Amino acid sequence: MTNITHIVDSFYPAPSATKYAHISSEFPMHRGESLNQLTIAYETWGELNADRSNALFIFTGLSPSAHAASSDRDKSQGWWEFMIGPGKPIDTNIYYVICMNSLGSCFGTTGPASLNPATQKPYRLDFPDLTIEDIANAGYQLLQHLQIRQLDTLLGVSLGGMSALAASIMHSGISRRLILISSASSSTAYAIAIRSLQREMIVNDPMWLEGNYRFDKPPASGMKMARKMGLSSYRSADEWQQRFGRKRITSQPKKPFGAEFEVQSYLEYNSEKFIGSFDPNCYLYLSRAMDWFEACSHGEGVLENAFEKIVLDHVLIIGVESDSLFPIWQQQELAEAMRSSGHQVSYAALESIHGHDAFLVDETEFAPLLKNFLNNK
Amino acid sequence: MTNITHIVDSFYPAPSATKYAHISSEFPMHRGESLNQLTIAYETWGELNADRSNALFIFTGLSPSAHAASSDRDKSQGWWEFMIGPGKPIDTNIYYVICMNSLGSCFGTTGPASLNPATQKPYRLDFPDLTIEDIANAGYQLLQHLQIRQLDTLLGVSLGGMSALAASIMHSGISRRLILISSASSSTAYAIAIRSLQREMIVNDPMWLEGNYRFDKPPASGMKMARKMGLSSYRSADEWQQRFGRKRITSQPKKPFGAEFEVQSYLEYNSEKFIGSFDPNCYLYLSRAMDWFEACSHGEGVLENAFEKIVLDHVLIIGVESDSLFPIWQQQELAEAMRSSGHQVSYAALESIHGHDAFLVDETEFAPLLKNFLNNK
Repeated sequence: MTNITHIVDSFYPAPSATKYAHISSEFPMHRGESLNQLTIAYETWGELNADRSNALFIFTGLSPSAHAASSDRDKSQGWWEFMIGPGKPIDTNIYYVICMNSLGSCFGTTGPASLNPATQKPYRLDFPDLTIEDIANAGYQLLQHLQIRQLDTLLGVSLGGMSALAASIMHSGISRRLILISSASSSTAYAIAIRSLQREMIVNDPMWLEGNYRFDKPPASGMKMARKMGLSSYRSADEWQQRFGRKRITSQPKKPFGAEFEVQSYLEYNSEKFIGSFDPNCYLYLSRAMDWFEACSHGEGVLENAFEKIVLDHVLIIGVESDSLFPIWQQQELAEAMRSSGHQVSYAALESIHGHDAFLVDETEFAPLLKNFLNNK
Repeated sequence: MTNITHIVDSFYPAPSATKYAHISSEFPMHRGESLNQLTIAYETWGELNADRSNALFIFTGLSPSAHAASSDRDKSQGWWEFMIGPGKPIDTNIYYVICMNSLGSCFGTTGPASLNPATQKPYRLDFPDLTIEDIANAGYQLLQHLQIRQLDTLLGVSLGGMSALAASIMHSGISRRLILISSASSSTAYAIAIRSLQREMIVNDPMWLEGNYRFDKPPASGMKMARKMGLSSYRSADEWQQRFGRKRITSQPKKPFGAEFEVQSYLEYNSEKFIGSFDPNCYLYLSRAMDWFEACSHGEGVLENAFEKIVLDHVLIIGVESDSLFPIWQQQELAEAMRSSGHQVSYAALESIHGHDAFLVDETEFAPLLKNFLNNK
């Protein structure tokens, strides 16, 4: 099985502390078809206790790897460094923390950039339709592999919140507690518009080649624009106004209609980093999965019916007022439907200026909330 | 001079009621260079009174032509049909209404798609740098041509609001009254991010050919995406949620990652219409002009100093709470700076759900405001 991992690694290296679960049984996909084998990449922090009851599992957003925080095995900063570690809000002296690279992503877990064992070539568009439910089921498989019967806490951010919700509905009692951050039971029309336009940028790039690009020659222009649009939707206009305003860069535009303002060079720098580090087909699959997700489909179209299938002690729902992609009314909707279906709910609407990405940067707002919730057994 | 008009007409036909002012004197541009001759396309409604004192002049947003309303000469619906006409809020029984196609646009007024008289080829990227001040000065030229010394009312929407503001600052006393709708004294970092990404979509389209595309083979993919992004920023997420929600289209996607939701087919339909009907280079020039504009540059960096150059009786400023492109705080800023610089100001913050485009569609909110202001001599 190591072949798969190595070949994927050659294009999109997984972080060095990544562990792998190789699932050799058939993995049926939610919309039909199945994977004959499945590799799940994950990372852990802390120690699993004797009765295997102190696990905290994290589903990530669309693009991160499983490297949520540094550790002795990988000292590089993780994507949620301020949150996870000894004495931090997600305290690795107390919890055995697991973060999974999503199914369909490209940092070690099987996805469109992985080798299809049937053809010995990358799946590309032959990868089966990917849904949030499949990501949730991959997480469940990983827990089986780790012989964890019930999590202390299941936590999901953004797309990962959808995955955590789906896992809670489809696998009753998977976790004693649930934390959903900047997530939703489905995508809004606006989010669908924004994300489908990002996908259009990629598939319209002549270098995409119907998904058959060389991994070292990706559709860079499409990926760059899609990432810029992503960044524009992840942060709030007010934050950018404070941060960049109308500050200009000192150099003259390098090409017709090139960058003149700092906000443009910020977008240029951050989108440039994305090219070659995230697989375009994986991006397309994961992005579309978010548009498709409808938690209510698990309850004959009624959200409360779906949520009645969930068994847990307490759910924490956190949203951000300035989030345009997963707006605050969607967090309220989650909280109300959870309450209506009989669950104990804590709900927080944060006034952070940082938009959808606030959980990644706003330690002041998020750290105490999570610390309090996790300490309150 | 008719040559110019006819050649432009062949690609981007001006509406049939368009009139033309041919300015044969040199027209200096704000950032340097100049045009040797200038054609200004405009349309009028109503009758100019004997003392030439009843004129109401409209600067448009980025993409419309001068055809703001129907008339006997052109019965097709204009872009502000509900607002302009006999007995309507802008009452053509009272006012002589003039709407100008912006300098740099492609519906009869000189712009990058027009024939450069020096080369007998279209200007394309040889068109001089275009600023809001140039559009304002073209408007002033048109008033000279029409022998109108002072307007009753100068009105601008969106980009046109910036033009009206610039004209008011640079040509003191140009109008007795001023109406600025969903406009600003400069663009926010977010608006710059969104617009520069739209420009990137166009210049990254291989069909753009450094601006040398054939007019019948424009960079369609880039223009389509830029328009979709425009539409996404012009309307509010709440409006789309009400209008489209998660409604699906009945047909299957026609290509990989193709449209599945109604909001996508709405964007597809409306952006498809834009291709071939608006010139890509004109779009680039006008879009960048908005990013560049800084009213405070006319007052050594202080908005109030710039506004002290304005001479008028009364200014009406209207903004919309759900506008993400010209947010409500920019309207408040305009109103406060106008008051601080000694002007009589009426200010309205509308709760319309229709975002930046509200003035185009929200008759209920906008019509009474304009009617009352215009009747209150």
